Amino acid sequence: MGEHKSRFLVKQRAFLKIYLISMAEKEQLYGKKYQEVIINKFKKYGYKPNHSEIYKSLYELIDDGILARKEKVKEGMKYQKVVNYIIKDTDKVKLYKKQLKVELDRCYGLLGQAIQDIYK
Amino acid sequence: MGEHKSRFLVKQRAFLKIYLISMAEKEQLYGKKYQEVIINKFKKYGYKPNHSEIYKSLYELIDDGILARKEKVKEGMKYQKVVNYIIKDTDKVKLYKKQLKVELDRCYGLLGQAIQDIYK
Repeated sequence: MGEHKSRFLVKQRAFLKIYLISMAEKEQLYGKKYQEVIINKFKKYGYKPNHSEIYKSLYELIDDGILARKEKVKEGMKYQKVVNYIIKDTDKVKLYKKQLKVELDRCYGLLGQAIQDIYK
Repeated sequence: MGEHKSRFLVKQRAFLKIYLISMAEKEQLYGKKYQEVIINKFKKYGYKPNHSEIYKSLYELIDDGILARKEKVKEGMKYQKVVNYIIKDTDKVKLYKKQLKVELDRCYGLLGQAIQDIYK
């Protein structure tokens, strides 16, 4: 990510992608469920990503070969299927998580520094 | 700032404006100097705001009635003047700092939460 020398904070898309990956690592979920969990999680921080932003992030992760769609028959519903999003490539996951760790730490440090300078 | 219910992170312009205000509170500076201090401060966080972004932020603060331009004869240079940017309205400063404290704390908390969820 060395090409973004003047960047300010992490872009929303990259943030959602790494968050979705970490969710997929823990549990197989369908699209609507990812959205619910994210929205509930960040409600108290005044951040409510919209539906299409989350789906675009999911689709990008599929295009990137990081997640895959997996059809599953819904429990108790013989003929109804849901699409879960699951980890496809653990090496790519590892790399992306490592890159985003640097990026998130950078942003966290930048904001912490500013708060310190301005308010302490 | 209640109208931005779905917002992700603080915008660069708002960030620069509050940082410039806090600098002006500490010391009278000219435009170029603000830029130098900010660039040096955030270099290690990989953030290098460009010249025009900083000037736009300064001009907005003047339009907002928060900062004012003050011509000053440069030390040792009898006929050369520099323009310093100084605090004009301390009540507005107080209000803006209070608002941005909420916003910066929100973003800091959001990122900290994400880092915790993804990496711990």
